[in-house]
Amino acid sequence: MPEFLPTAPYRGTRDFLPPEMSVRTQVFGHLYEVLERRGFLRYDGPVLESAEIYEAKSGQEIADQQLYTLTDRGGRRLALRPEMTPSVARMIAGSAGSLQFPVRWYSHPNCHRYERPQRGRVREHWQINADIFGSESANCEIEMFELIHDLLGGIGATEDMFVVRANDRTLLSSVLTDLVGVTEEQLPRVFSLVDRWEKHDRAALAETAAEIGLSDARFERLTETLGAGSALLDEIPAEVREQSNLVSVLGGGAAGLVTFDPLIVRGLAYYTSTVFEVFDTSPENNRALFGGGRYADLAGLFTSQRIPGIGFGMGDVTLFDFMGTHGLLPEPRSEVDVVVIPVSAELSDAARTVAATMRRAGLRTSTPIELRKLGKELSRADKAGARAVVIVGQEDWDAGNVTVRGLADREQRQVSVDEAAGTVTELLAR
Amino acid sequence: MPEFLPTAPYRGTRDFLPPEMSVRTQVFGHLYEVLERRGFLRYDGPVLESAEIYEAKSGQEIADQQLYTLTDRGGRRLALRPEMTPSVARMIAGSAGSLQFPVRWYSHPNCHRYERPQRGRVREHWQINADIFGSESANCEIEMFELIHDLLGGIGATEDMFVVRANDRTLLSSVLTDLVGVTEEQLPRVFSLVDRWEKHDRAALAETAAEIGLSDARFERLTETLGAGSALLDEIPAEVREQSNLVSVLGGGAAGLVTFDPLIVRGLAYYTSTVFEVFDTSPENNRALFGGGRYADLAGLFTSQRIPGIGFGMGDVTLFDFMGTHGLLPEPRSEVDVVVIPVSAELSDAARTVAATMRRAGLRTSTPIELRKLGKELSRADKAGARAVVIVGQEDWDAGNVTVRGLADREQRQVSVDEAAGTVTELLAR
Repeated sequence: MPEFLPTAPYRGTRDFLPPEMSVRTQVFGHLYEVLERRGFLRYDGPVLESAEIYEAKSGQEIADQQLYTLTDRGGRRLALRPEMTPSVARMIAGSAGSLQFPVRWYSHPNCHRYERPQRGRVREHWQINADIFGSESANCEIEMFELIHDLLGGIGATEDMFVVRANDRTLLSSVLTDLVGVTEEQLPRVFSLVDRWEKHDRAALAETAAEIGLSDARFERLTETLGAGSALLDEIPAEVREQSNLVSVLGGGAAGLVTFDPLIVRGLAYYTSTVFEVFDTSPENNRALFGGGRYADLAGLFTSQRIPGIGFGMGDVTLFDFMGTHGLLPEPRSEVDVVVIPVSAELSDAARTVAATMRRAGLRTSTPIELRKLGKELSRADKAGARAVVIVGQEDWDAGNVTVRGLADREQRQVSVDEAAGTVTELLAR
Repeated sequence: MPEFLPTAPYRGTRDFLPPEMSVRTQVFGHLYEVLERRGFLRYDGPVLESAEIYEAKSGQEIADQQLYTLTDRGGRRLALRPEMTPSVARMIAGSAGSLQFPVRWYSHPNCHRYERPQRGRVREHWQINADIFGSESANCEIEMFELIHDLLGGIGATEDMFVVRANDRTLLSSVLTDLVGVTEEQLPRVFSLVDRWEKHDRAALAETAAEIGLSDARFERLTETLGAGSALLDEIPAEVREQSNLVSVLGGGAAGLVTFDPLIVRGLAYYTSTVFEVFDTSPENNRALFGGGRYADLAGLFTSQRIPGIGFGMGDVTLFDFMGTHGLLPEPRSEVDVVVIPVSAELSDAARTVAATMRRAGLRTSTPIELRKLGKELSRADKAGARAVVIVGQEDWDAGNVTVRGLADREQRQVSVDEAAGTVTELLAR
């Protein structure tokens, strides 16, 4: 047994010490602000859910290998939520009677998956989820695409830093069956082949295609078809295209926001038509940042009411990688705006009184806990990012005054206690 | 098997639908603001921790009965954190080399305990944790008491709604051994007897006292001593009092913020001197809202460096009960400030363009997803809490104009698209 327990967090989970946390809260604050400006309403739910809601819905990969499960003393099988969609489906089903659909909802849960830790993969991640529930209108697609641009713009990204690529699974089905000659039975496996198209090399793809039972000729045809990019749209029968929300918005409301890409599939089982992924355009970080899609029936596990929806989950790890690559991460906020320093311990109560006037004026203000010499306190205030200090000396204080000092210009001025907060506010506004 | 899975969350956990979540985010926003105005820095850590950090530290009650545990595929025993202190102790120990003590830190984790659900007890709760680490100065006590008053003031509580009661375990030890005649061996059990003093009836207390081995005379003496309240301080030897941070601040920096109360003990094992609890003064909700205390050595499990600290955890359930009792809960925020309504689907893109100008001006703005007749849209905008709508009609639009309408006064005015956001902002400012 080691003498001390390890100080590292459990593998794949993260501690966020104040400087990093400050960066995160600033970034998330911008994202919340964008969501709320678009009328998205925040909700939240428990980390623990009944395990069966994932086993039934999220696809076997998660249920078999990635789920953290436990059994409570009552014998109930529980899981740490690996994603938010089953939880929000449960909530929407439970409150459907009192909701006026469509609704725009968002959340920011921590989700757990038992993954082998590697770049971009952690066991606990934080994910912004944004969805529109209760509508099949193509306006939802436009909203989602606008929202994505607003969110990334809200954290300082410019339009050249990312692209949104979208597909419609019903179009892809039509393409694969009608143009490539894939059978209905082969379809699910060919979907997952397409999903890996850019991640695997050609030999590996050909091998998988052969396993699925596609002839060499069909594999060639598939390659050619997928390579057509957005030109492929013209080859799709009009009656199929007319049913597609994505097609209807590509040339209209979502023009310039999104590119058609037949290679976008998304792994998760519940998407039924529109699917999309956001890609970093930087060669250093050329990967999907996040994605989402449309589901015809969100809450089928919980209710007979058919509730369609569209949404996405934006994970923190890839988002911060993206921001780092593009130099978008903000600096940690300073600890305080101003420090009120008594020149002796006897003046500590006086300093606290002055600090209270600063805080009432909205200034982030501290006083020393373990008082040292003025020079050391000034240097500490500087390290804390304060831009001003207020020095409380005995003679000044007896006359109802304090000394305000800017830490950049080192200019000092004596002001009355009543004026001090105003003087500091002016100094910070420079 | 039921046809559908239940929509209720796991027992003892809670869903927060948007109206409730809006109340919560407002309240928590005020609390964060108060903390940051005092220079407290936010941190965060994982839900999953190694189980051993609780088994070693939090006392047997939690480890034996209240801990949610699981074992990962690597055989590692994990727990859902039941409280934040062991996690932050781990972080502080791990980063002690780069920290400039003392530090003021806060967090807002969700914590899990396997409790029988009842009023004020849930299995997942959210808790504001605020601590000062790395100082034994009595200034820490003053900061904590000031912070508590500021936090409750920040959510609208007035000073008559709560009291802070504090004790010092070293004083209580002295009182019990020197004045009551309790033996060192009896001390821990007498502490827990004192902890239950106001919750149990006299007969039950007497029975427990007898079990501990206190004579009737000693029990009488105990009763009398504890009943003395703050007058008890005078009976404590000066050399004991002089060592007490609490005594030193009671008449000075913390005067008016806190009352001495020998009955405050706090159950958790790691407090070593100052302990405090905040009580609701309302007869309807006469209970401890939250509490905390000082620990001589926070991180002894993780490091040989002795790091003292003082802090508290403020749970959401009791906090919201308190706010409800005193009528302090804010209304949910409106969904949006303004809705931009196209009079026909052809004008949807135009409406989105106008909505974007509103958002750039900081207005929370939506457009209809499934467009209905104008009357219905106006009524829906009203239900969403919007105070204005912008109506986009074809002729107006062709002339570069839109119609701004206040939902309270129903006054309409035609303005250019460029002026619309300004007009709405003025209307909302009224």
